[in-house]
Amino acid sequence: MQQANLGLIGGGTVGSGVYHALTRNAALLTSRIGVGLGVRKVAVKAFDEPRPYSIPRRLMTTTWQEVVNDPEVHVVAELVGGTSVARTMILEALKLGKPVITANKALLSKHGEELFATAQRHKTNLYYEASVCGGIPIIKSLREGFVGNQITHLYGIVNGTCNYILTRMSREGAEFDAVLKEAQALGYAEAEPSLDIDGFDAQHKTGILASLAHGFWVDPKDIYVEGIRSVTRQDMEFAAKLGYTIKLLGMVKMTAQAPANRKSDRRQVQVSVYPALIPSSHVLASVGDVFNAVFVRGDVVGDTLFYGRGAGKDATASAVLSDFADAVLDLKCGSVNRVPAFVSHEVNGSVVPIDKVVSRYFVRLRVADIPGTLARITRILGDARIGISSVIQPEGQRETFVPLILMLHESPYGAVCAAFEKIRALQVVKGKPVILRVETFG
Amino acid sequence: MQQANLGLIGGGTVGSGVYHALTRNAALLTSRIGVGLGVRKVAVKAFDEPRPYSIPRRLMTTTWQEVVNDPEVHVVAELVGGTSVARTMILEALKLGKPVITANKALLSKHGEELFATAQRHKTNLYYEASVCGGIPIIKSLREGFVGNQITHLYGIVNGTCNYILTRMSREGAEFDAVLKEAQALGYAEAEPSLDIDGFDAQHKTGILASLAHGFWVDPKDIYVEGIRSVTRQDMEFAAKLGYTIKLLGMVKMTAQAPANRKSDRRQVQVSVYPALIPSSHVLASVGDVFNAVFVRGDVVGDTLFYGRGAGKDATASAVLSDFADAVLDLKCGSVNRVPAFVSHEVNGSVVPIDKVVSRYFVRLRVADIPGTLARITRILGDARIGISSVIQPEGQRETFVPLILMLHESPYGAVCAAFEKIRALQVVKGKPVILRVETFG
Repeated sequence: MQQANLGLIGGGTVGSGVYHALTRNAALLTSRIGVGLGVRKVAVKAFDEPRPYSIPRRLMTTTWQEVVNDPEVHVVAELVGGTSVARTMILEALKLGKPVITANKALLSKHGEELFATAQRHKTNLYYEASVCGGIPIIKSLREGFVGNQITHLYGIVNGTCNYILTRMSREGAEFDAVLKEAQALGYAEAEPSLDIDGFDAQHKTGILASLAHGFWVDPKDIYVEGIRSVTRQDMEFAAKLGYTIKLLGMVKMTAQAPANRKSDRRQVQVSVYPALIPSSHVLASVGDVFNAVFVRGDVVGDTLFYGRGAGKDATASAVLSDFADAVLDLKCGSVNRVPAFVSHEVNGSVVPIDKVVSRYFVRLRVADIPGTLARITRILGDARIGISSVIQPEGQRETFVPLILMLHESPYGAVCAAFEKIRALQVVKGKPVILRVETFG
Repeated sequence: MQQANLGLIGGGTVGSGVYHALTRNAALLTSRIGVGLGVRKVAVKAFDEPRPYSIPRRLMTTTWQEVVNDPEVHVVAELVGGTSVARTMILEALKLGKPVITANKALLSKHGEELFATAQRHKTNLYYEASVCGGIPIIKSLREGFVGNQITHLYGIVNGTCNYILTRMSREGAEFDAVLKEAQALGYAEAEPSLDIDGFDAQHKTGILASLAHGFWVDPKDIYVEGIRSVTRQDMEFAAKLGYTIKLLGMVKMTAQAPANRKSDRRQVQVSVYPALIPSSHVLASVGDVFNAVFVRGDVVGDTLFYGRGAGKDATASAVLSDFADAVLDLKCGSVNRVPAFVSHEVNGSVVPIDKVVSRYFVRLRVADIPGTLARITRILGDARIGISSVIQPEGQRETFVPLILMLHESPYGAVCAAFEKIRALQVVKGKPVILRVETFG
């Protein structure tokens, strides 16, 4: 193979980023992998849509099928997003036996198994390094670098928008709504921000990482999600006083194996997304602004961390180029299934329901500043066998209702919710308790 | 290929770690790569040498040739270290066409080119993920994950012993000698610690990373090295007051291209190892104890960081297993040169001599506490066109000679050395100036 051409579907932010990077570094890439590389065709929505880098008019088409069907396009990159037409595009290319690159986590999350099966049936492959954490080579590291490891714990800061908002709230003592508005003005958050701030984007990515780590494709419906809307400046302040920083974490954690008297040895895995308090001294706490990071603990390698930009035209382009090089080397060497898109190896694994997930907790209540309040609350927790590790009642408050912070020992989430339903019903408690998990990486 | 066997040369700390990890996770590895994996033979110094994990007696031999020549050994791992017999072992295995895995950075640094050429001549490959930063998949990330990037900057904390000593000095306000002694007692430093604390181990690793990033094999002789013996508690304290933390950094930095009127467009790269002040807010500053980390800036991906344990039986075993899986997949797919051991792509590149390397500096002097001292020093720096960004003279000192800290703007090292030779000769200056670089990742 002397020359391999990429066909791009999508000529917007990411598509033009890939075109730009590949063009600029073509000679370097060619010298590294020994094959000439180029972009043959780019399918765009409109020739004159705004894009950060220009694409020559002669390469553009508004018909995506022209990219897929062009015999001189050896590898197809789907960079349009969404879960309907993108699915069709990828399936069409795979059916022609062409390797496909995608950055589309929502699509993988929803239709991953169908896409992987199609790739296998047509003796080709699907590459998706760019779908999780942009330029960080986390997919390659998980399935190749850590191939010899049981991945016992994985904690990811995988959504740049949330991390930007939380970082600014923490640094400036600002409230969520104000920072969100500024993030929208700066282009770090969408006008419709729900996908990011309600945790759904993190859910897609966490599901992909969990699937690769544990070898069964995780249904996004099984992934418990809490976004960051409920995190307040006050929570940040109390957390900081206690030595913690609040981050939105995608979590993948092996729980104890099922008891031996059960027939199967189904692997139980926690897969969830929620804001959590982490020790401010932990390396993940120093991951600020729009940066992403994934903390991986393997049973052989120990603790590791991967850090970088999780989104944006350039970081994503870096991952697409890595996938392009892999696809081209596989074409050149006839090794297209060397590292298949997905290898199932724990088909009996399952996601632990959130109610059974055991964590520590930070709980913030508003309570009446009268004698006996704490006793009533702690009695309910005691009856539920939920241990309290510390209680903080800030002094100097001269109001009828004052904040009360409880730090709780490890308990199942279901039990904690049930106890706080009862506590909430007490007359001395006002409003809904704020319940955040505490992760200490123990 | 149904079954692939590893032959280990070396049954000590790392060798037994590989045996242990591979045995424990064999089923998982097999399900992930689709080939049965096992250890066929282990060459040891003595059957009863002390090792952290036991190895079955029936697998052991004291003759390394038995491992290399066994037709049922498909891949050979050299884990004995050193640069003489290890070289012979690897060459013998490569000449039989067997893929070889090594963790031996000293050997690669010294004989890399010969080993790579031998692998290529015999249509096999040499894998060395474990040679740099233990379990961190930095080799794979650099040459595959970032294949589409010019690596403009790379800063590595690549020696765990030095990082452990510097971390404890910083945390406890302790002096170098005391911490070194404790590190030796704890097994974190060797009885003969020079390889680590004088920077030579970091030199080997930095050379390998530089070579992979820039495509010309860097001769270790060209890599300027300073160890950490000269770092004092006082330097740490002043650095901390200024907002900096001192780390031993392996650095690989592209400098400006040679002027256009020169015939060649030789790439000039700084490759060096020295203790440097880095902003305490930077993510590298939070890398403590024996952990390693590599900060990589690519022209496409931007800033990234890789963090984990850089040494030890388990972290190193994780990297060896990753290489074993790669080697087996390459044997299975007939793609043994898919990612060659080394690809030369900047044959005209060269390492910039340290005198021409431009940095900022932290300089600590002991000076006479009399009027006119600062004027004499600043005049010499002014004449040499070296700018001063700040001057600190700690108050409350009641001695004849007092510390004086100078922070200097960007200047070539040669000019700074020459100026401080003159300054040192002043009667008002006592002892040798301490000169440390300041890296701000700009």
